[in-house]
Amino acid sequence: MKILAFAASLRAASLNRKLIALAADAARAAGAEVDLADFHEFDMPLYDQDVQDSAGIPEPCLELCRRIELADALMISTPEYNFSFPGTLKNAIDWVSRVKPMPLKGQVCYLLAASPSLVGGLRCLWHLRQPLEGLGTFVLPTMYSLPQADKAFGEDGQLVDPKRAETLTAQVQQFIETANLLRGKVSSAAG
Amino acid sequence: MKILAFAASLRAASLNRKLIALAADAARAAGAEVDLADFHEFDMPLYDQDVQDSAGIPEPCLELCRRIELADALMISTPEYNFSFPGTLKNAIDWVSRVKPMPLKGQVCYLLAASPSLVGGLRCLWHLRQPLEGLGTFVLPTMYSLPQADKAFGEDGQLVDPKRAETLTAQVQQFIETANLLRGKVSSAAG
Amino acid sequence: MKILAFAASLRAASLNRKLIALAADAARAAGAEVDLADFHEFDMPLYDQDVQDSAGIPEPCLELCRRIELADALMISTPEYNFSFPGTLKNAIDWVSRVKPMPLKGQVCYLLAASPSLVGGLRCLWHLRQPLEGLGTFVLPTMYSLPQADKAFGEDGQLVDPKRAETLTAQVQQFIETANLLRGKVSSAAG
Amino acid sequence: MKILAFAASLRAASLNRKLIALAADAARAAGAEVDLADFHEFDMPLYDQDVQDSAGIPEPCLELCRRIELADALMISTPEYNFSFPGTLKNAIDWVSRVKPMPLKGQVCYLLAASPSLVGGLRCLWHLRQPLEGLGTFVLPTMYSLPQADKAFGEDGQLVDPKRAETLTAQVQQFIETANLLRGKVSSAAG
Repeated sequence: MKILAFAASLRAASLNRKLIALAADAARAAGAEVDLADFHEFDMPLYDQDVQDSAGIPEPCLELCRRIELADALMISTPEYNFSFPGTLKNAIDWVSRVKPMPLKGQVCYLLAASPSLVGGLRCLWHLRQPLEGLGTFVLPTMYSLPQADKAFGEDGQLVDPKRAETLTAQVQQFIETANLLRGKVSSAAG
Repeated sequence: MKILAFAASLRAASLNRKLIALAADAARAAGAEVDLADFHEFDMPLYDQDVQDSAGIPEPCLELCRRIELADALMISTPEYNFSFPGTLKNAIDWVSRVKPMPLKGQVCYLLAASPSLVGGLRCLWHLRQPLEGLGTFVLPTMYSLPQADKAFGEDGQLVDPKRAETLTAQVQQFIETANLLRGKVSSAAG
Repeated sequence: MKILAFAASLRAASLNRKLIALAADAARAAGAEVDLADFHEFDMPLYDQDVQDSAGIPEPCLELCRRIELADALMISTPEYNFSFPGTLKNAIDWVSRVKPMPLKGQVCYLLAASPSLVGGLRCLWHLRQPLEGLGTFVLPTMYSLPQADKAFGEDGQLVDPKRAETLTAQVQQFIETANLLRGKVSSAAG
Repeated sequence: MKILAFAASLRAASLNRKLIALAADAARAAGAEVDLADFHEFDMPLYDQDVQDSAGIPEPCLELCRRIELADALMISTPEYNFSFPGTLKNAIDWVSRVKPMPLKGQVCYLLAASPSLVGGLRCLWHLRQPLEGLGTFVLPTMYSLPQADKAFGEDGQLVDPKRAETLTAQVQQFIETANLLRGKVSSAAG
């Protein structure tokens, strides 16, 4: 079981980088191999069909596609920007969706969000399901929302609240279990 | 593999009754046993916590819960009312969510929508995923949308357009395959 | 300026009843006349087109339509049920949408939600906009979300946190101002 | 009445460029002055808080903010990418949201979508309301959806179907009427 994991934030001090690192640790503890990527590895220009037609798919998008294809499942931790997902993350999905075969189809995906607010990125998480599921990704119904994330991590990078840490571990285990059951076994229906 | 199937419409001449009947046929052809229910079997009062506290869960809700528990997976075909799901269907979900253990958790579900419009119930389908997934149901990413449904069925009840019929068959097969992989095998993470 | 206000909850001890009462007070203080209704006044059967065809629109729905038409604007405080709006509220909207002329078209509406959770009913509020806006209602972009509502009210029924009380007053004033500008002045475009 | 209008597409042959041009004509015919912008005028880097902290808001974002502030209202015609809004458009909104005072607050906005599909960009339109309304924009409930847009325009750039042309004209008139009532008159409530 190989998992591609990244935080959909370019900021070095991102709370979502901290959260995805913990999710990666939990996945490794559950026996998975984790490719923990930096979102900067996939920096892409703004999507423009004219650019695609003249210059093709940009290399960082092809790199993201290769990494998705090498993985058996996907974990994304994302900030909420303006009551929805970040434009940067959707721009990456828009480019990836143009590649054939489209690597998100049939993938299993676990979503997380860290946010300083009380709401914990919930509006982002629910919005983000729609493009992913529309593209045929199995998004785990269970999602991890970390509210007040600016106060949630200790100096060692661990979650201060043991209950939240337990929930993260349990959800990552369920995700790996589900990915093991589904990955590569579900045929693609005409959609 | 036993599947509970119903149209979330009370109207006798409902287009969604026709569509779920075809989905049930496709599921049987794929080897599943289908419990094709009439939504009237689950007629419930409007949800009111005071009623729940004084009189308990109404019998038609308990009946729906039993039928869900007897099934390995769920197919629902639903009309779109006012840019979202019908209040009647959500009212049933609201009652079911109060039963312990909550039978929708861990279920696998395939959603369909028939509509006379060009839009084919898409706004309903995407809205309906949220309460179901929030309750821990695995909703198949692939959904079946039947636009212009008032002209879609022949006198024999079959879909006039062979391509649409093929898509339905392929999606139902994928659904059964997925349900076989997931059902009863995924532990429940604290949510 | 006359405002119809109600909590979309049937429960006597509903937190949303408390919240809408405060919103009604704020509207009166701002010079409006408020028709504070009990949602039980609009108890309707589950929507069924066959019932509509044989028995017509039920009287409680006609009563709700009359009350909407007598008002210049609308305030609804709603609980969140299962990550969306209550089926009961949507059932009322589904019935109302069948009445001609449809009284929600062109109405101005302010939405509130009280919830014991940290999330304050946000998933409900965002979902609820869609059927209302689809029906041509001007829903104020500003919405009032009251998290941890079980601890938010004092014995006098007022909000314990003065900042939250101020926000409510300011939002209600903005709502009345907006309703004054829009009400009855916007023609209906073919939609 | 001055209106900023643009298609949220970078492609030269974009169907949404054609549609926004017609909406601009309708607005001018209704007496408005229209600033019809090319989305390329607002090309921005991917949002990155570290870039913002070190280099400030990029000039094309400041230009977009100035153009919004010079306008009394906003018309955006947008393609649907992957069941939601384009990442490019959201990236622009994410940058704009960081500018103080935030120019989208209190703006009146009319949304359109052209799409070759039968669905006419509806999933995009409904998703796009959420970040805009969350930021305090009054988004007109009426939206214009143009399905099968690849066949909808004649060689003269007009809509072939006279009914669709009439609807566009009527909606633009309603938008201008609403913008006239609201613009600059609504105070900002604490949100």
